[in-house]
Amino acid sequence: MEHIPAPLNRKFSIGLDFGTSSARALVVEVSSGEEVGTAVYDYPSGDQGVLLDPREPDLARQNPRDYLDGLQECVRGAMRDAAKSDGFSAGDVIGMGVDTTGSTPLPVDSGGTPLAFDPRFREDVNAQVWLWKDHTGHAEAAEITSRARDARPHYLAKCGGTYSSEWFWSKILHCARTAPDVFDAAYTWVEHADWMPAILTGNANPSRIRRGVCAAGHKAMYNSAWGGYPDEDFLGSLDHRLVRVRRTLPSRAYHAAEPAGMLTEEWAERLGLPEGVPVAVGAFDAHLGAVGSGIRPGTLVRIVGTSTCDMMVAPMDDPLADIPGLCGIVPESVLPGQYGLEAGQSAVGDIFNWFVRVIRPDGKDHAALTGEAERLRPGESGLLALDWHNGNRTVLVDQRLTGMILGLTLHSTPAEIYRALVEATAFGARVIMERFEEYGLGVDRIVNCGGISARNRLVMQIYADVMGRAQHISRSSQTPALGAAMAGAVVAGEAAGGHADFDAAARAMTGVQEAVFHPDPQNRQIYDGIFRLYKRLHDAFGVRDSRDDLSDVMKALLAIRDEVRA
Amino acid sequence: MEHIPAPLNRKFSIGLDFGTSSARALVVEVSSGEEVGTAVYDYPSGDQGVLLDPREPDLARQNPRDYLDGLQECVRGAMRDAAKSDGFSAGDVIGMGVDTTGSTPLPVDSGGTPLAFDPRFREDVNAQVWLWKDHTGHAEAAEITSRARDARPHYLAKCGGTYSSEWFWSKILHCARTAPDVFDAAYTWVEHADWMPAILTGNANPSRIRRGVCAAGHKAMYNSAWGGYPDEDFLGSLDHRLVRVRRTLPSRAYHAAEPAGMLTEEWAERLGLPEGVPVAVGAFDAHLGAVGSGIRPGTLVRIVGTSTCDMMVAPMDDPLADIPGLCGIVPESVLPGQYGLEAGQSAVGDIFNWFVRVIRPDGKDHAALTGEAERLRPGESGLLALDWHNGNRTVLVDQRLTGMILGLTLHSTPAEIYRALVEATAFGARVIMERFEEYGLGVDRIVNCGGISARNRLVMQIYADVMGRAQHISRSSQTPALGAAMAGAVVAGEAAGGHADFDAAARAMTGVQEAVFHPDPQNRQIYDGIFRLYKRLHDAFGVRDSRDDLSDVMKALLAIRDEVRA
Repeated sequence: MEHIPAPLNRKFSIGLDFGTSSARALVVEVSSGEEVGTAVYDYPSGDQGVLLDPREPDLARQNPRDYLDGLQECVRGAMRDAAKSDGFSAGDVIGMGVDTTGSTPLPVDSGGTPLAFDPRFREDVNAQVWLWKDHTGHAEAAEITSRARDARPHYLAKCGGTYSSEWFWSKILHCARTAPDVFDAAYTWVEHADWMPAILTGNANPSRIRRGVCAAGHKAMYNSAWGGYPDEDFLGSLDHRLVRVRRTLPSRAYHAAEPAGMLTEEWAERLGLPEGVPVAVGAFDAHLGAVGSGIRPGTLVRIVGTSTCDMMVAPMDDPLADIPGLCGIVPESVLPGQYGLEAGQSAVGDIFNWFVRVIRPDGKDHAALTGEAERLRPGESGLLALDWHNGNRTVLVDQRLTGMILGLTLHSTPAEIYRALVEATAFGARVIMERFEEYGLGVDRIVNCGGISARNRLVMQIYADVMGRAQHISRSSQTPALGAAMAGAVVAGEAAGGHADFDAAARAMTGVQEAVFHPDPQNRQIYDGIFRLYKRLHDAFGVRDSRDDLSDVMKALLAIRDEVRA
Repeated sequence: MEHIPAPLNRKFSIGLDFGTSSARALVVEVSSGEEVGTAVYDYPSGDQGVLLDPREPDLARQNPRDYLDGLQECVRGAMRDAAKSDGFSAGDVIGMGVDTTGSTPLPVDSGGTPLAFDPRFREDVNAQVWLWKDHTGHAEAAEITSRARDARPHYLAKCGGTYSSEWFWSKILHCARTAPDVFDAAYTWVEHADWMPAILTGNANPSRIRRGVCAAGHKAMYNSAWGGYPDEDFLGSLDHRLVRVRRTLPSRAYHAAEPAGMLTEEWAERLGLPEGVPVAVGAFDAHLGAVGSGIRPGTLVRIVGTSTCDMMVAPMDDPLADIPGLCGIVPESVLPGQYGLEAGQSAVGDIFNWFVRVIRPDGKDHAALTGEAERLRPGESGLLALDWHNGNRTVLVDQRLTGMILGLTLHSTPAEIYRALVEATAFGARVIMERFEEYGLGVDRIVNCGGISARNRLVMQIYADVMGRAQHISRSSQTPALGAAMAGAVVAGEAAGGHADFDAAARAMTGVQEAVFHPDPQNRQIYDGIFRLYKRLHDAFGVRDSRDDLSDVMKALLAIRDEVRA
């Protein structure tokens, strides 16, 4: 018998994905996209990784210690997992990439150490990481929007016309106003996505951090067209103390095909990796998730998890109008040479989880409710919900909106409500898709990724029926980590066995599942009618100065219900 | 030791109360109102006494057999209970009265036998009793309203401007249209309130039934001013077959201080009562409940159960305008010489029960949810509901409205929703009270009765705070049965040891509890603000041609929430 040697020259990249509740590492073979090892670390702090305050429902923070512990645990775990695979050797890891949630900034001192590690602030939630879904800065967001509308309208044009309470400057300004001790002690604020590569490469000192254009452009009003971050006059007019923060920020931001630096000896040892491995500039999970889903012009990538991100790209050599209500249009935030366009829903899986975990209807879990909801026909329940339990990110850009369920009767069941909540998120997704298309970005293909898309056939079929488009599902179940690994393969470069660019990486490493969810024509027709009602409520409750007589909405729903049942 | 004899000359009346799920008999001493015996019989048929059809959520029927079995069981049970009391003797029962739900008509043959007892129709839901909350006739109700608006506007003026799907002619017309076999087999239709006294007195033959003015006036467009029931031309214009039904109806209806007849030998034996006891003409539970609560001009009696009735009376010698949206203004439907005014909410306890029994949030029962909801402050949850899960009876008179919950976040708890549902019913109650007052019927005293008022302090305090009025609670926990017993005492007459009239009966037999719920000024102020928002939604969703920008509603709720928490 001949001995068949393990394949030679297999090279690997590691993608690190820092989510809302856990960190994940993924070891990927760069020529095939094969995922050879993975590990997940659940953040131990707070409520599933989120520090909450029962008196302030808008507050959501994280402990940066969870990130460092998670980094070490999940890389080592993924390496052990990969070691089971033929031909894997730690020495063949050629690059790393990082994605995180955002805007998730943390205050750091002049040496780059988080204030949260300072004994003075250890117990202070304001010194922790301000998680993306923290909305405490809604008043400051309104103030920034109003000031920019008067003085710097171009700042708003690229972020949907409204600066969000989720974003960088809203959070920092709210901290300045409500926790001046923390604000004064902070030298600067660093996005989680920038902080992780900085830590890994020994570049945590604020003067050396390479800040990513993804976070800077989408959340901090950075644009090379106006010289980078917002100018000092503008920030000073909001609060003179912001000028000091502005002066700590660099003039240039980087895209994820550029390196943040090389892995330090210390971290190489901790992680069991070769020293000097290049680490890509960090980006947000949605952006690298889109990369890991094979985003290209005409493809809408929907990352469906606790919330969604709806991502598109458009070539920078074509003209592109500002799109009202879009969270951001940022050059090179997803792919070099392309505008990155980010839309999204503030809560999707979070709404389903709220219903199952907080309301706990009839003690039923997702599987039981999904099973019952699958047996219902569109329109049958007469229910219609607004999916605004965590505000509306796109196209209304308004965190001060709330969820609604309408059409309730004495017979409305938990499964009917569950289905109505799923449908509401589908209607929200359709509003976003239609907004892209209205502004000339035709959607010829939809690729879903994220846990819900892989697990829940009901949700995918409803999305197909409501959006009227086939729903593809990304082959990888962990596209942000895959996208981060692709960034690692690109910064490693072709010579090291990686890829020359994202285009080559996408061809080699991404794909979709065979199973496709196609719209059912009859369901689609019913949902078209319900969507018109959704849009009426959406505009009546969400758009200022709309003038709408809503009195026929419920009757129309009942008529649809009766028609379906007849 | 002297022997003290039991008091002499104690006389008793029996009140029979037929509710939605059970029948009750109450034995009352007529000089004091002392309730010496009671018994309840749960209807065995259907779902808690209601026959449902899963394909038709508007359908709600009852089995008339349950009424007859309930009559016998609960009178005998109440007599056994009374027999434990000193000085009670069956021979001292001097009168009986009956109340039922309504409009709850049943089809009978020419001998007065329910079609439901005919083997041909035993399994046919359309041959059973059409329970008050059956809304299958909504299309017919709209047709009757429209036809009357054109041809007989005075018919509508006394029933709030809209003929309801809950009422007599809507149900009969719907039967004619959808179940012609049942309709053709029926000689006439009899209200449950009229059928029970007819059975007890041997007057079930349609030619001998004394129909009550309460049912006829409030539900069948009967008014002595236009010669009784609607004329044949009008009914014939809706459907020529209704003319035949019209011809089975008498020219005069009776109030509850008039006798329907005397107890037959057969029923006297079955019930263990003296033959020949006078039985009062039947009336609806709400009307006799108001009597049992001591209704008088200026007193709003609120019967708070699965639904509510909000009752007032006004002297017939004073002029009284038509009141838009009021279910009915009917001479002598409550007290002789007074207009009876009936308003009400289509669902109150039913909404709380839906939440606890159908949604089953976190497995919590009413007590657990009430306990948690009591610890919440007004406005704290940011939630606002519309209490239209079973339509809106007053002031919108529209069964095609549905419930709504607005202001949901990912943190909204079952107790918060439960409280919001209670508050919604309180706002609904306030709309009704304000409508009475707008039309000159000042409310100087509110007396609540019904199970919820006696059991649930949270509900009563919220009603006080939302309505801005002290809430009294009727001393009796079974005011409809007490009112029916009072009718029995009045038809018995003073000479037999009863009462000359309802006024005398009320002085002797009714009262309120010592505990009174007073408005908390701070809560009241918060609720005034939330009520304004409720009214905006109420009008936007419930009133045709209203023009309202609703986009600030949610923000206003959140602002109130934040203010309360601050």
